[in-house]
Amino acid sequence: MLKLTADGCRIRRERLLEQVSSDLLIISNPRHVQYLTGFFVTPLVLAHHAPVFLLIDTKTGKTTLLFQNMLGGFAEDTHVDEMIPYNWYTATTRAGMPIYPKALHELNQHLEKLTFGSTGIEIGSLPYGAKVRDVSDITTVLLEMRRHKDPDEIDLIRSAIRAIEAGHKAVRKSIRPGLTEVDVYNTMMSAIASHVGHPVVPMGDFAGGIRAFQGGGPATDNVLEAGDLMIIDIFPIVNGYKGDFTTTLAVSGELTEQQEKLQTALLDGIAAGEAMLKPGVRARAVHGAIQDELRINGFAEGFGHHAGHGLGLSHPEAPYFVPHSDEILREGDVVTLEPGSYDAEAGYGARIEHNYLITEYGYEQLSHHLLPFV
Amino acid sequence: MLKLTADGCRIRRERLLEQVSSDLLIISNPRHVQYLTGFFVTPLVLAHHAPVFLLIDTKTGKTTLLFQNMLGGFAEDTHVDEMIPYNWYTATTRAGMPIYPKALHELNQHLEKLTFGSTGIEIGSLPYGAKVRDVSDITTVLLEMRRHKDPDEIDLIRSAIRAIEAGHKAVRKSIRPGLTEVDVYNTMMSAIASHVGHPVVPMGDFAGGIRAFQGGGPATDNVLEAGDLMIIDIFPIVNGYKGDFTTTLAVSGELTEQQEKLQTALLDGIAAGEAMLKPGVRARAVHGAIQDELRINGFAEGFGHHAGHGLGLSHPEAPYFVPHSDEILREGDVVTLEPGSYDAEAGYGARIEHNYLITEYGYEQLSHHLLPFV
Repeated sequence: MLKLTADGCRIRRERLLEQVSSDLLIISNPRHVQYLTGFFVTPLVLAHHAPVFLLIDTKTGKTTLLFQNMLGGFAEDTHVDEMIPYNWYTATTRAGMPIYPKALHELNQHLEKLTFGSTGIEIGSLPYGAKVRDVSDITTVLLEMRRHKDPDEIDLIRSAIRAIEAGHKAVRKSIRPGLTEVDVYNTMMSAIASHVGHPVVPMGDFAGGIRAFQGGGPATDNVLEAGDLMIIDIFPIVNGYKGDFTTTLAVSGELTEQQEKLQTALLDGIAAGEAMLKPGVRARAVHGAIQDELRINGFAEGFGHHAGHGLGLSHPEAPYFVPHSDEILREGDVVTLEPGSYDAEAGYGARIEHNYLITEYGYEQLSHHLLPFV
Repeated sequence: MLKLTADGCRIRRERLLEQVSSDLLIISNPRHVQYLTGFFVTPLVLAHHAPVFLLIDTKTGKTTLLFQNMLGGFAEDTHVDEMIPYNWYTATTRAGMPIYPKALHELNQHLEKLTFGSTGIEIGSLPYGAKVRDVSDITTVLLEMRRHKDPDEIDLIRSAIRAIEAGHKAVRKSIRPGLTEVDVYNTMMSAIASHVGHPVVPMGDFAGGIRAFQGGGPATDNVLEAGDLMIIDIFPIVNGYKGDFTTTLAVSGELTEQQEKLQTALLDGIAAGEAMLKPGVRARAVHGAIQDELRINGFAEGFGHHAGHGLGLSHPEAPYFVPHSDEILREGDVVTLEPGSYDAEAGYGARIEHNYLITEYGYEQLSHHLLPFV
């Protein structure tokens, strides 16, 4: 598995320490534990929900990771000074204390050994009863930091994108009337797992026919018919990071006049958005450019969602391409553009989407799947 | 999607209220929110990690559910008196406060409107900063309650089991030398999704050849060879509940003498365990019966894990079939038996597993996949 690097994790911890003043930091959101140490537990294993705590002494920089013993296999290539696995269930001894109280108990036992005055925590994520004092919230600092993607993060995003491209390719080749949405889902997810060589968390929209008029939703046993469009928007978690891009396919390989117009509108829309992608541009202006283009083409009424958003450890994350956003694009942002338009009465629904890295003077297109409906 | 029933949820809330004395209960573990209301969010959608809080006024029984607006689609057929969706991100307005602080803020805003003295919470799950007072922990009460599966829960477990059986059937038919573990995984997961008509969380062990000597692990690109055994242990989340059963298959359809002996040992072991399954029996005695049978057959040394465990909303859960467990089997327990034996030096590894409901006088076998390796 591809992992965040020692250098990347160290640089991010240093960046974090420059912005906080507490004596001790406790990171309890698993995504941020990964961000700062490389420790990633796939949500597909049994003990994935077992709480993990990363402690950082802000004076010395010393890092300590508390995690449940069954997650030890994930600790390889984790960049911390000290690891403390706590025993919960070993598969030969009966579980004693339930896992959540046990994890908190272990954290508090460790905190009692430490000398610290103030604590920086993630509000809403650290559990009630943690023996911390003089608390401040570091959530916003972490979220703000996450906008700038470092090279090791971009490598992980690229690997997720390569996998999704393999999935889109397999689906484009095989889609036809008579398949169900679940059939298309199976083709997509099998191609992705084969590409990466291990299971991934299979998240995505698979919406054909009248379900495409609503814009999305997980696959169902809805049967695809000739003349249908199908929206396929994929955002699996691969090694902890995300790609997120969409294609709309004509099930029978032919387009009605209306579907052709919609395709043109969306292609014009994404091109207008791309033309805006560079540092210094306001997020709302990117939304505006895409909306204007859809308006010119007569499809703005059906465009009720964001024009895109940031992505990385999760999605959506900042910047948000929505009407009133003051956020300004920066070098290191990774974003999607995703014009779509849906109208159940008029009987249409489609979306297209690419992923981009914002560079010093513009952008690099990260995803390379095809956008035409046929 | 199959859901827990209004009656089932009401009965479980009544059972809970009989055992607690606090004025107000706050349920923050999503599994327990489902258990008491039917509200289930698949981990495959974007907002699945958005905190959910169920409040129960223990005097009136009134239930209030706080959840993020984007999860509204999951609120259908949820059995609560009041629903309070909180706005986080709407896809047209920029997200303001981060999701975890926002969820806590909404909970505290609601708590300020209520009159209560004492609070029953789930320690380790409720976030730091929740404005509760005179706190007691109800985790153990909930876990203890979960052992007795109600009819609506058993329906959900049965539906998960039917899906897994479809997967095992597809894999047994198609396994052959030259496939990778990921190929087998893809066949399994496609068959399961096709059976239920929607995606499920694809958890399981797919370990062939020398990987079977270690007992398990997620699928890799390891290529299966003639003569290999492959352990296939499946435990997806289907509608919030689990089935969990294993088959070991001979990749080339033929067994060595050693593999035949191992097969016999495991079949004897599971039969010995089954003979113990009835109310009143100690969990450690079930483990002992299976271990004895493996010993007689010469395979006890390689048996280093539990002989089975409870399952339902999660797994493992009580009762645990491990050496020192004092737990006593009861009517309403749903359990697995899973004898296995592994030895890298001797070059073998296999496991078999079925699921059972403990009934008044014995058990009902819930899973019906085939156990022979060929």
